[in-house]
Amino acid sequence: MATTKQHPATAIGLSREIPDSAAMAERYQRVRSFSEKLCETLVPEDYVIQTMPDVSPTKWHLAHMSWFFETFILKEFRPDYETYHPDFAYLFNSYYVAAGERHCRPKRGLVSRPTVENTFKYRAYVDRHMIELLESADMEMRAGIAPLLEIGLNHEQQHQELIQMDIKHVLTENPLRPVYRDRKDPGVSGTAPLTWKAFDEGVYWFGHDGDGFSFDNEGPQHRQFIESFELASRLVTCGEFLEFMQDGGYERPDLWLSEGWAKVENEGWEAPFYWENHDGKWMLMTLAGMRPVEENEPVCHVNYFEADAFARWAGARLPTEFEWELAARDVEIEGNFVEDGYYHPIPATHEPNGQLSQMFGDLWEWTRSSYAPYPGYYPIEGALGEYNGKFMSNQYVLRGGSFATPRDHIRPTYRNFFPSDACWQFSGIRLAREV
Amino acid sequence: MATTKQHPATAIGLSREIPDSAAMAERYQRVRSFSEKLCETLVPEDYVIQTMPDVSPTKWHLAHMSWFFETFILKEFRPDYETYHPDFAYLFNSYYVAAGERHCRPKRGLVSRPTVENTFKYRAYVDRHMIELLESADMEMRAGIAPLLEIGLNHEQQHQELIQMDIKHVLTENPLRPVYRDRKDPGVSGTAPLTWKAFDEGVYWFGHDGDGFSFDNEGPQHRQFIESFELASRLVTCGEFLEFMQDGGYERPDLWLSEGWAKVENEGWEAPFYWENHDGKWMLMTLAGMRPVEENEPVCHVNYFEADAFARWAGARLPTEFEWELAARDVEIEGNFVEDGYYHPIPATHEPNGQLSQMFGDLWEWTRSSYAPYPGYYPIEGALGEYNGKFMSNQYVLRGGSFATPRDHIRPTYRNFFPSDACWQFSGIRLAREV
Amino acid sequence: MATTKQHPATAIGLSREIPDSAAMAERYQRVRSFSEKLCETLVPEDYVIQTMPDVSPTKWHLAHMSWFFETFILKEFRPDYETYHPDFAYLFNSYYVAAGERHCRPKRGLVSRPTVENTFKYRAYVDRHMIELLESADMEMRAGIAPLLEIGLNHEQQHQELIQMDIKHVLTENPLRPVYRDRKDPGVSGTAPLTWKAFDEGVYWFGHDGDGFSFDNEGPQHRQFIESFELASRLVTCGEFLEFMQDGGYERPDLWLSEGWAKVENEGWEAPFYWENHDGKWMLMTLAGMRPVEENEPVCHVNYFEADAFARWAGARLPTEFEWELAARDVEIEGNFVEDGYYHPIPATHEPNGQLSQMFGDLWEWTRSSYAPYPGYYPIEGALGEYNGKFMSNQYVLRGGSFATPRDHIRPTYRNFFPSDACWQFSGIRLAREV
Amino acid sequence: MATTKQHPATAIGLSREIPDSAAMAERYQRVRSFSEKLCETLVPEDYVIQTMPDVSPTKWHLAHMSWFFETFILKEFRPDYETYHPDFAYLFNSYYVAAGERHCRPKRGLVSRPTVENTFKYRAYVDRHMIELLESADMEMRAGIAPLLEIGLNHEQQHQELIQMDIKHVLTENPLRPVYRDRKDPGVSGTAPLTWKAFDEGVYWFGHDGDGFSFDNEGPQHRQFIESFELASRLVTCGEFLEFMQDGGYERPDLWLSEGWAKVENEGWEAPFYWENHDGKWMLMTLAGMRPVEENEPVCHVNYFEADAFARWAGARLPTEFEWELAARDVEIEGNFVEDGYYHPIPATHEPNGQLSQMFGDLWEWTRSSYAPYPGYYPIEGALGEYNGKFMSNQYVLRGGSFATPRDHIRPTYRNFFPSDACWQFSGIRLAREV
Repeated sequence: MATTKQHPATAIGLSREIPDSAAMAERYQRVRSFSEKLCETLVPEDYVIQTMPDVSPTKWHLAHMSWFFETFILKEFRPDYETYHPDFAYLFNSYYVAAGERHCRPKRGLVSRPTVENTFKYRAYVDRHMIELLESADMEMRAGIAPLLEIGLNHEQQHQELIQMDIKHVLTENPLRPVYRDRKDPGVSGTAPLTWKAFDEGVYWFGHDGDGFSFDNEGPQHRQFIESFELASRLVTCGEFLEFMQDGGYERPDLWLSEGWAKVENEGWEAPFYWENHDGKWMLMTLAGMRPVEENEPVCHVNYFEADAFARWAGARLPTEFEWELAARDVEIEGNFVEDGYYHPIPATHEPNGQLSQMFGDLWEWTRSSYAPYPGYYPIEGALGEYNGKFMSNQYVLRGGSFATPRDHIRPTYRNFFPSDACWQFSGIRLAREV
Repeated sequence: MATTKQHPATAIGLSREIPDSAAMAERYQRVRSFSEKLCETLVPEDYVIQTMPDVSPTKWHLAHMSWFFETFILKEFRPDYETYHPDFAYLFNSYYVAAGERHCRPKRGLVSRPTVENTFKYRAYVDRHMIELLESADMEMRAGIAPLLEIGLNHEQQHQELIQMDIKHVLTENPLRPVYRDRKDPGVSGTAPLTWKAFDEGVYWFGHDGDGFSFDNEGPQHRQFIESFELASRLVTCGEFLEFMQDGGYERPDLWLSEGWAKVENEGWEAPFYWENHDGKWMLMTLAGMRPVEENEPVCHVNYFEADAFARWAGARLPTEFEWELAARDVEIEGNFVEDGYYHPIPATHEPNGQLSQMFGDLWEWTRSSYAPYPGYYPIEGALGEYNGKFMSNQYVLRGGSFATPRDHIRPTYRNFFPSDACWQFSGIRLAREV
Repeated sequence: MATTKQHPATAIGLSREIPDSAAMAERYQRVRSFSEKLCETLVPEDYVIQTMPDVSPTKWHLAHMSWFFETFILKEFRPDYETYHPDFAYLFNSYYVAAGERHCRPKRGLVSRPTVENTFKYRAYVDRHMIELLESADMEMRAGIAPLLEIGLNHEQQHQELIQMDIKHVLTENPLRPVYRDRKDPGVSGTAPLTWKAFDEGVYWFGHDGDGFSFDNEGPQHRQFIESFELASRLVTCGEFLEFMQDGGYERPDLWLSEGWAKVENEGWEAPFYWENHDGKWMLMTLAGMRPVEENEPVCHVNYFEADAFARWAGARLPTEFEWELAARDVEIEGNFVEDGYYHPIPATHEPNGQLSQMFGDLWEWTRSSYAPYPGYYPIEGALGEYNGKFMSNQYVLRGGSFATPRDHIRPTYRNFFPSDACWQFSGIRLAREV
Repeated sequence: MATTKQHPATAIGLSREIPDSAAMAERYQRVRSFSEKLCETLVPEDYVIQTMPDVSPTKWHLAHMSWFFETFILKEFRPDYETYHPDFAYLFNSYYVAAGERHCRPKRGLVSRPTVENTFKYRAYVDRHMIELLESADMEMRAGIAPLLEIGLNHEQQHQELIQMDIKHVLTENPLRPVYRDRKDPGVSGTAPLTWKAFDEGVYWFGHDGDGFSFDNEGPQHRQFIESFELASRLVTCGEFLEFMQDGGYERPDLWLSEGWAKVENEGWEAPFYWENHDGKWMLMTLAGMRPVEENEPVCHVNYFEADAFARWAGARLPTEFEWELAARDVEIEGNFVEDGYYHPIPATHEPNGQLSQMFGDLWEWTRSSYAPYPGYYPIEGALGEYNGKFMSNQYVLRGGSFATPRDHIRPTYRNFFPSDACWQFSGIRLAREV
């Protein structure tokens, strides 16, 4: 249990040692090039489309990530830096009000130019200047750049996951159902049985200890009293979710929060997002195209209301984010990440009895915790203070990363968050219960 | 600090002693007649109107409160009870899915019959049967009735406040701006200065101890770790809120949660609800009609986003519901309640230095706590289990009651809740801050 | 065939002879008191409700009709006239932009005051001043008043029909389905067979000849070339419409205009408005409450798309408004009007072969003519010029009056108009076809 | 004045002489290749976007035009024809219900595949089979193909204009405002003065005489009585429209139809579509990018309400479609068409006094005629019967073609139609008035 309290001023990205230029440049290029690798199978037309307000075109993601480095690093540390195009700040600022006027989010898919080719040129232009900057910076400048570089690269990694979420939505909207990547078979049969691991009541410290990068919303470190509880050893599977469905899960209002039930009725929910009933057989869309639902795989694309209703049906509940973090801090950060190339959750393998599997990777896990500031949290000054704090209302925290998350992007203290009806993200269910 | 844990099964309304028939009947009649007293100044046309989906017609409230006793007591304890009208269960069930089909909430204002006169006859019919039941019930039956009677009467009191909230909205929508009750002058000049009271960090018990009535969402009792904090001695005043406005409060996105700022822009917010700018002078609608904003009065009808933005502007924050409860448990339950006849918040009077005023009555106080179940909370079985639990998403907790709340209805553990953009309720702001 | 062309300046209400004071007062009182007679069976709560934007509360109609006389006659001819209430012009002006600011139409049902009682007092106040004015006016003043009085009384009669349309909608929205008037049995069995009457091609004059009152949209008189055609002898019955339904009328896109079919699909149309399927049996709501559909009665509450689709299914079409007018000009103005007290269309009685029945009264008949200005039409100057002209887009003309129309209100040249999806009006279908 | 009546059966595309194979193939290739020529300046990303439900992606247009030949000719006359792709019928059927299920119109912009390249391959595939068919068809088969080929090529030409309308909307939505084609200067200064040409009252024949191709909605030929009238010699200019604006045109409700005024207020209209006020100076978007409004050019992109309001302000009115056709039948079909390469209307040149200019080309001219069937009109059987007839409600007729229309596509009897608030089409104003 950590005991050091983090200072708000260091909440974003301050590493204690200043890396050398070569290391910074290497890391920069490795992360940046992975964004482009994710686009290898796309044709120019795929990059343009926005299928709902929450989805951004791939082209936009690629440009926005570059705008981030341009705005928060190049313009700050290279006074003579010339922006690639005077209108790109308007087009590719996402939500940073303090960074100037910006294009309307739901209209990102209405912009055919810059072309994909030009967007890649924009990336190359920024990369060239970034590498030059990193290679020429002395230690003092590197000390200033380092935390911003870290946030920029972590920001890039978040958009790498968003690219996968968004292109899945785009390809699914197409009646031809194109494939993003061919399926890689995990070669697993069956799944581990679900067991429970118990945790004792007590006062614990939570939040990031400031050693290495973290987002500001992970601090300050602080204490919470936790009642004793048990946590499920793995994610809920499609087979278990099918049982819920067959038991009338989508027809019984007593299982649902009132707001969720209204949506079940008004929007006709009857299965998780991306599931389709083909003549009585449940199929699901994946990044490898349509295929039958497999019972041993974790159920994916459930929203908060579905996760909560399933848990109630199962005689359990969702964990709080603190319960999850308490359980996760002793688990090794390994699992099914984007580098593994599955592009989908895979069944849990058998673990020694009582151990937790799938805590990292596979699927983000809904918690019953509303996304709120930790005691003593204040956002930093300036545009980057808009990164997290202003979204702390009417969303729920998810933990642990997914198959689309880069392995070195996740931490036990990492807080992801989505509205309760969002379902295009790679989200699943882990149960908790009272002792 | 309480130490007894409450059993879920007793979460609703179990008093330990069974009252005698006369006491039950007396209390029943006292609460019921107050609902009618609140309608004394209305004409039949006023009872019919629904000015937005959240508002219910007064006529509907009067009938619904009677339906509650009919459904949960008379039909349960009097097998031969004949309902007043076969269709009233459909018309006057609010949201109890387990109690059967019901009329669509946004259409409550489209129903002219039953008439107001007939609605009062319905009340009289239910009252006559209730009194007969209470007077004839033996102790065993009274033991069964008592918790349901308590919840029924507390439910009636909640609707007494709703009647005031809703009729204010109805009368304000009318360009003639009719008066509900003539103003009663509190005879106070000035307001107390705002001071801060400090509280120490520690593990505390929260929630209701089961002694006397409480709603199920107030339990189970459980522990929370609280960091040290300070709480403001009184509510924020209109004068202070005007300073916020004059300082560009509604024009500075950095002061707002992202979701709130989107509403400021899209809905053109520029002052609290019920405020109107008449030729540069701020007026506000009250239950006594339009009058100028008075600086010493607590600011009323702010929503969560406004309360949060004001707090940020003031260099403070909203308290959590636990901080509020910790502070409230040693404060006497006195203040400006519905029995006082002001029908509006009044200025804080001067208190001994460091003491808290206006904790009860005047205005419900927004907390930064999302409305969520306490550890170990499960709703009771059956329709009454729908009372609270199913609303535990995307709402925020408010504490302390208002000028429209009956004095014997409020407790330190009482949890009210509204969505973050709701503003027709009698809500105000009390600040908190880190030490 | 008329040959006199009407001057635009006399388009509204110019009678050639100036009536004497007593006749004017008598006519005024007769028309005005009938409005109140139509309200005899209503309770105050019924007067308040607006069930959709097109519907106005009965209370609003009663006040608006009085405002019309107050605004266009009393204020014009009695410089010392004091309005009953300074805010009523705002509340009860419907759409006369030139007459000043007005309340928002969809919010008419959100206004509980003035009460019904006060609204009747307002009527009495206006009536007293109108009678005084009419009785004291000399011939010159009467010459000025007469055309405005005529338009005011015809306006009142239009609202008498609207009161019936609107209260039917209000009572139907109520799950209790209250009765407006008990049913009066027409004592008719069966219906006349449908025959066709032929008309020759030629150039004919159309529009009002200026002899007696007409609305400005009925002129100027002008010529049209009409191809030969045949007109059905009576309205389409419910039995015939049921055949259309049983033949898949609401399931075959080839029968519908594209815009209509989109509404069939999106809004789930499957029968005329006010029809309900109770366990396989078609019922309909009437002003006398719910009862089974009767096959011999004319089908009522069809919209333009339904009328057009039925005609296509029947191998016919709707008549143009000129074809209808050509046929109507030799038909006596008699039929089922509001004074007959049926409050519903009645079956056609047997007529001598080839004669037309139900041309006047029973139901307004959809024509395929878009509501457009006649050649040479220009609205008069001032607020009353807004009466008709500004609505000449995207509506269709209906002819002949209904069971809710006062008998002396209708003419062969009378042009009613509604949008193509409107169905709360008393509209039916008469077929036409090429020879 | 024509005297031959057209038979409904020949309403679509029956030429009297059967062309030889070479002529058919040549005409086919000429029209088809022009569609591709219109796309020369586009990048793949441009082809994908749908900026509003009425707009289709260029890619969709290119594929849909091919689907038309595939469905109505290749599948009919080549029983062994294999469709290019089994799902393209679903994706590229526009609104022909009888031709099978189809993709939802507002989602055409959500489909990235087939790619642009593949779409062109689809065109080439269809073209190859069409040429083979035309070259191998004997006279009997050619007699069957000829009318369908004509409708297919005229359909293609309609989409050539739509491509220009839609890409203008797409490029305008982009804040970078890309250019479609560089401007070609008409080399004209000033504009002809507006004079009036008079026409006599009388009975005239209207509609197409069946000699050469016409759409079914142009027949049958029939008579109308026309009162005498005068028609303006040219289109209304931007300078004249600016006068209307400066005279409060968008602020005076008395100038507008009620429905139009509601839109002025709710949607904030203050100038024609594609006009923008840059610091007090009116600019407009063209297919050659943004440039200042030029006073001598015809005003473009006005909707029906704007055209009607302008005419009222000018003391005139819009012509009926019959008045327009009567005037047009003696005018030579020449003007500014798509082959001229201006991609914008150009100022009227000086004509001999009293002659009409700009009747064909430049801009479609709003008439006050609702789009309705001519007497005796019935759509043909089958899917092609859906081409025109089912849209005959709530739209207005426009006449004469525009700068985006192919020269050999237009006729005096040609009826285009749009809803009254549509403004992305190339529409202008020609005035008429009573004598």
